[in-house]
Amino acid sequence: MHVTLKENERIDDLQYKGLKIIQKKNGFCFGIDAVLLANFADIKKNGKAVDLGTGTGIIPILLAGKTEASSITGIEIQEEVAEMAQRSVILNDLSHKIDIKVCDIKDSVSVLGKSKFDLVVSNPPYIKYRGGIINESDTLAISRHEIKCTLEDVVSAASKLLTPGGQFAMVHRPERLVDVMFLMRTYQIEPKYIRFVHPYAGKRANLMLVKGTKGGNPELKMLEPLYVYDENGNYSEEINRIYCRGEYKP
Amino acid sequence: MHVTLKENERIDDLQYKGLKIIQKKNGFCFGIDAVLLANFADIKKNGKAVDLGTGTGIIPILLAGKTEASSITGIEIQEEVAEMAQRSVILNDLSHKIDIKVCDIKDSVSVLGKSKFDLVVSNPPYIKYRGGIINESDTLAISRHEIKCTLEDVVSAASKLLTPGGQFAMVHRPERLVDVMFLMRTYQIEPKYIRFVHPYAGKRANLMLVKGTKGGNPELKMLEPLYVYDENGNYSEEINRIYCRGEYKP
Repeated sequence: MHVTLKENERIDDLQYKGLKIIQKKNGFCFGIDAVLLANFADIKKNGKAVDLGTGTGIIPILLAGKTEASSITGIEIQEEVAEMAQRSVILNDLSHKIDIKVCDIKDSVSVLGKSKFDLVVSNPPYIKYRGGIINESDTLAISRHEIKCTLEDVVSAASKLLTPGGQFAMVHRPERLVDVMFLMRTYQIEPKYIRFVHPYAGKRANLMLVKGTKGGNPELKMLEPLYVYDENGNYSEEINRIYCRGEYKP
Repeated sequence: MHVTLKENERIDDLQYKGLKIIQKKNGFCFGIDAVLLANFADIKKNGKAVDLGTGTGIIPILLAGKTEASSITGIEIQEEVAEMAQRSVILNDLSHKIDIKVCDIKDSVSVLGKSKFDLVVSNPPYIKYRGGIINESDTLAISRHEIKCTLEDVVSAASKLLTPGGQFAMVHRPERLVDVMFLMRTYQIEPKYIRFVHPYAGKRANLMLVKGTKGGNPELKMLEPLYVYDENGNYSEEINRIYCRGEYKP
């Protein structure tokens, strides 16, 4: 499928089933967190998934490649970013599976409907917005800071979008662990699995992957730590498996 | 100081400043969790500490050896266990610093008073009590299962016992992470530090150490993982430091 690139855009090869993605040369590019989250989330055959704050569309595109989900919706508040994601969907010939919508997470339930999704994923802005300093039209800032939505907006929307027993999967920074645990339980998404991601063995975790079940019983499973690099500074075996084959499930 | 041992009791050397402890040969013996917690907790010079569910009295005895706290109270619901802890206090000539009280954690605030402590520590029973099976007079079972008190009883008591800005330090299993985070925030003890303890690098954590501040602002710091054993199956360097010198602070 042919699409037109705008100024300052490039096409990156995801090195997985021929999938590609359009990204801005100087904008927010997807990171390891999105790849790990797409690998961590579970969706059954013919299940319906939604990605809250989809950005470049990386998570819907990876989920389309890795799972047998029947439909994946990506919502994104920034029109320009959503339009670029839409072109990546066309580029990958995935328009029959992926639907990108310009939508505020706070409006997602009224737009998409209640209890309609088997999986909600989100790689939300990590940093608490304390007002002031940040330019609100800065797309990088909006992707990184809780300017347009808070963690509570994300968890609250996820809870309403999920079917009973549906899964919410999220990646966040360990500094927000208390917020994530507290809000998930408050909004009836019981955390069931947690996995900390460490740059190296022995170093403090700098990412965490969490999966919860809508209406689930309290019972958390702590998973093995995931190390990004081995002792020689190369990607660990597991990261190579996730990146290259995309089939690995811990 | 000379004390009398009862049948089935033995004296163990803590290999730290000559401290000793009386334990039952076939009862609940202190574990690495208590030692790690005593090392993890902070108390200022002349501060007042209380240990909720003190068991053999291991934590007050270690805190007396390691810190400049002026007083450490250990409360224990099991009379027989508290009496043994009391004899360990006498054995170590620590009666001027440590006070062991037979007391239900649920009564601790009325017995000890509100907002009187700079530090509350607890190594509580880890396992949720689901009724039935367990013999309620079994001291081992009471130490391990939430028969006489729940996690909520512990956190709620800690919150009331602490001065504003005081510290609550606890050790628990990662499976209870959501409960610990949720209850601490609910009872206005904001989690500030968390450290996961892994048997080996690469293995899932089986203990966690948490410190929170009464009335603190949300800001959690994830600390480096603590590995108990090295790759050869020997105690790690850090565990040796904690056990042998007891002076190490991460």
